[in-house]
Amino acid sequence: MKIPKNAKRVFHGVMFDVYQWEQAMFDGSKQTFEMMARAPSTDVIAVVDNKIIVLMQEQPTKPLFPSLPGGRVESGSAPLETAKREMSEETGYEAKQWKLLGEWFGASKLYFHESVFIAKNCKKVAGQKLDAGEKIKITFMDFEDFLQLCRNERFTAPLGLKFMMYEALVDSKKKKELMGKIFK
Amino acid sequence: MKIPKNAKRVFHGVMFDVYQWEQAMFDGSKQTFEMMARAPSTDVIAVVDNKIIVLMQEQPTKPLFPSLPGGRVESGSAPLETAKREMSEETGYEAKQWKLLGEWFGASKLYFHESVFIAKNCKKVAGQKLDAGEKIKITFMDFEDFLQLCRNERFTAPLGLKFMMYEALVDSKKKKELMGKIFK
Repeated sequence: MKIPKNAKRVFHGVMFDVYQWEQAMFDGSKQTFEMMARAPSTDVIAVVDNKIIVLMQEQPTKPLFPSLPGGRVESGSAPLETAKREMSEETGYEAKQWKLLGEWFGASKLYFHESVFIAKNCKKVAGQKLDAGEKIKITFMDFEDFLQLCRNERFTAPLGLKFMMYEALVDSKKKKELMGKIFK
Repeated sequence: MKIPKNAKRVFHGVMFDVYQWEQAMFDGSKQTFEMMARAPSTDVIAVVDNKIIVLMQEQPTKPLFPSLPGGRVESGSAPLETAKREMSEETGYEAKQWKLLGEWFGASKLYFHESVFIAKNCKKVAGQKLDAGEKIKITFMDFEDFLQLCRNERFTAPLGLKFMMYEALVDSKKKKELMGKIFK
């Protein structure tokens, strides 16, 4: 959901902003409504031959979890630019062909722009350049194992992507479509 | 994820609080980390004979969406108490037997306690008592249709429950288990 135009930013943080506005109710009375906006984030499905890169990460507040290359989009950056930079830093891989798989905009009380890109024919061109808050091991998964990742509670990924992966497990037509988008 | 003990509340809102703390990184440097806490919420799977109550709701900022009876747990209230009150107000139904189906605590940057209760053998004992911000139509779904609801993007429910429903679609053993919990 988008932040309403008449909303006022009442808190500005490192990663989260809070907005409030007076909302007219069905009977004409008013209530203070509140929404969060989270800094945008982007993730990459990086294809190496017939495999997808999956990171096994550790962060200072989070024990080992699987994720995709990606991260927070700094203000002034575009999601694709961030996707390319994060993939390069976290994996040392580069791709010539990029396309957007999907983007989502959070849930009812949270505005959160998440985008997932597909990076095709990735090649290793350098080593990792990790932040002080990252420990990352690169692994490679085939499509079937990748789909099963959505069932892993520790898998950190955009919710929209997780639902897309579940849909592929539930509906064979959607599975074919997703496989085509990633590998064709 | 729980809010770290050393975190300071830097914003207190209507529905959201923001916390910050200085986090030691792997190289000993420090960064300001931020997390949200959202007011707890509870939902009810209300069983009437072999059907589940599903609400078709409208709210001032949200066009028609399916959901379960439930709502925000006010400070000082227990989730079960809220579940009973919301079910009574939104549907006019009551149940003698209640049990907890599951509870969840948000994602990595958000502390959000959500609980889902099962209310068995519900009976209509009164009319609806709706808030100024609610328009609610009561419908009844069988178990198969209810499970398919998780695939509806407009279905507003705890993420943990949505994943539990997807798991039931993907894994027939989990489907049997969930059906048993709800109807037995």
